[in-house]
Amino acid sequence: MSGNFADRLLDAIAAKGTSCVVGLDPRVDSMPAFITDGVRANSDPDAVCKAICSFHEIVLDAVAPLVPAVKLQIAFYEQYGLPGLRAFAETIAMARRAGLVVIVDAKRNDIGSTAEAYANAFLGGTTSLGHHLAGFDVDCITVSPFLGRDSIEPFVNHCAEHGRGIFVLVKTSNPGSVDVQGQVAEGRTISERLARMVDELGADLVGRSGYSSIGAVVGATFPEEARRLRVEMPKAIILVPGYGAQGGSAEDAIANFNEDGLGAVINASRSITYDGRSQDLGPEELAARIGENTRQMVEDVAGAFRARDAV
Amino acid sequence: MSGNFADRLLDAIAAKGTSCVVGLDPRVDSMPAFITDGVRANSDPDAVCKAICSFHEIVLDAVAPLVPAVKLQIAFYEQYGLPGLRAFAETIAMARRAGLVVIVDAKRNDIGSTAEAYANAFLGGTTSLGHHLAGFDVDCITVSPFLGRDSIEPFVNHCAEHGRGIFVLVKTSNPGSVDVQGQVAEGRTISERLARMVDELGADLVGRSGYSSIGAVVGATFPEEARRLRVEMPKAIILVPGYGAQGGSAEDAIANFNEDGLGAVINASRSITYDGRSQDLGPEELAARIGENTRQMVEDVAGAFRARDAV
Repeated sequence: MSGNFADRLLDAIAAKGTSCVVGLDPRVDSMPAFITDGVRANSDPDAVCKAICSFHEIVLDAVAPLVPAVKLQIAFYEQYGLPGLRAFAETIAMARRAGLVVIVDAKRNDIGSTAEAYANAFLGGTTSLGHHLAGFDVDCITVSPFLGRDSIEPFVNHCAEHGRGIFVLVKTSNPGSVDVQGQVAEGRTISERLARMVDELGADLVGRSGYSSIGAVVGATFPEEARRLRVEMPKAIILVPGYGAQGGSAEDAIANFNEDGLGAVINASRSITYDGRSQDLGPEELAARIGENTRQMVEDVAGAFRARDAV
Repeated sequence: MSGNFADRLLDAIAAKGTSCVVGLDPRVDSMPAFITDGVRANSDPDAVCKAICSFHEIVLDAVAPLVPAVKLQIAFYEQYGLPGLRAFAETIAMARRAGLVVIVDAKRNDIGSTAEAYANAFLGGTTSLGHHLAGFDVDCITVSPFLGRDSIEPFVNHCAEHGRGIFVLVKTSNPGSVDVQGQVAEGRTISERLARMVDELGADLVGRSGYSSIGAVVGATFPEEARRLRVEMPKAIILVPGYGAQGGSAEDAIANFNEDGLGAVINASRSITYDGRSQDLGPEELAARIGENTRQMVEDVAGAFRARDAV
């Protein structure tokens, strides 16, 4: 992909007028009956792949006009084995055809040449014996920093070379995030130290937008901490999970944005695509419901910004 | 799988008389010409899958009589996209047919239901609409603790329910491991805190062997720290990467074992299967060379134990 990832994402945000993104995390058992009837009747594992693709075709049609990006949580595909990963590849292809920025939430990492293999898998592919293998080929992925700075650098190199981005986990939305990320060493939490590292790693990948292709993940559930971390990495784009089903409000989530109203994307998955009220709907009604849920989230976040700016 | 994972692994170690395991980390460009000629001539991405499977068939024939387990680093398969993951599934099936314990080095993790999805993917599968989908179905995987204790518990539950195991990253072999794992909070490193957590999480999964199905990863390159961590989690089986190509000696690696000479497995990958001297060999010579490299590692580790016991 050409150009700077941060610029590409911010252009898409400007075009759609929102920083909300929709998660595509397949839960086959929660899909409407018109999708799952074929799976129920058929023990062919490929039925699962087809169900996921049919469902996501409808979701993508509904959300593509409304949001700049989709986020695929790869665990929900991987749990179905190879048929699930075929659906993952096909969902990526559909999202790219729909002009959406594709974020993969993979939380991958390892050391040295293994980190490079993961970067190949998602951020540019690899050349083997004269043939290019594209891997899963998306705009950006989430990366775990547990193994330290030298484990993140291979990803940064791929971002520079192939116009991609990463979001480094800095503070996750779960209570257990305190066990490692919340520990205090020499007066600063691990999360604060990582925010500083993200800022440094991203310095050479700042685009014309003023934002860097090296971003961070900061959950929506700890807004006070989010404000402190925001200051440590002013040029990072922050991916904010935890809005909606995980309990973070729009007001909490926007703590991750800069004063310019930019610098973050807020993801919602279950509350958009599996809202608990859609299992009996037909295709057109489902598309309408998903569009309505998305517009409601966009309006909820816009309202939180208006309230903040009015103070 | 039935029974306790730790017992199954220790039985295999007793049967083969060594705690050495062999890594299956495909590097297609480094495979012998008789394997890669087909790939070079053919732009079909499936040629890569076939090359990996052909190579691993030879490796597994050579090492199955000598070692209790193989370790598959999934990143090296994932980098080739879907064809690579088909080879991953086929390699797992071949290793299981050869009676080997299968360890997947995946360093996966996430929160809540997403962690459970990863556990489904590797440690027991999932049931969807009345059909069982086995996922990749192996004996054990490596898990990252960056998201905290509540992110590891879904894996522990799968281990209890399905007779599987996990190895939680505690101290990795790279220099950058100091950035997070080496930070000192309230007088203890993050690694020491995690070792304590591993010990607690594994308490209910101790088998008749006296070892638990909840193990740890501790690299071979920091032997002093390995000895301290060993004491914090006496019942954990420790997976030791970093021997051989990554610079850890047999003497360093055995710092992870208990006085009984048990409680750890030492992995080598590149030094067994891509030793830099095998690219011109034919099939029989390759099998002989890989067997020889494996026996050399087994003897090297046995010698380090003899030297330790003689002191």
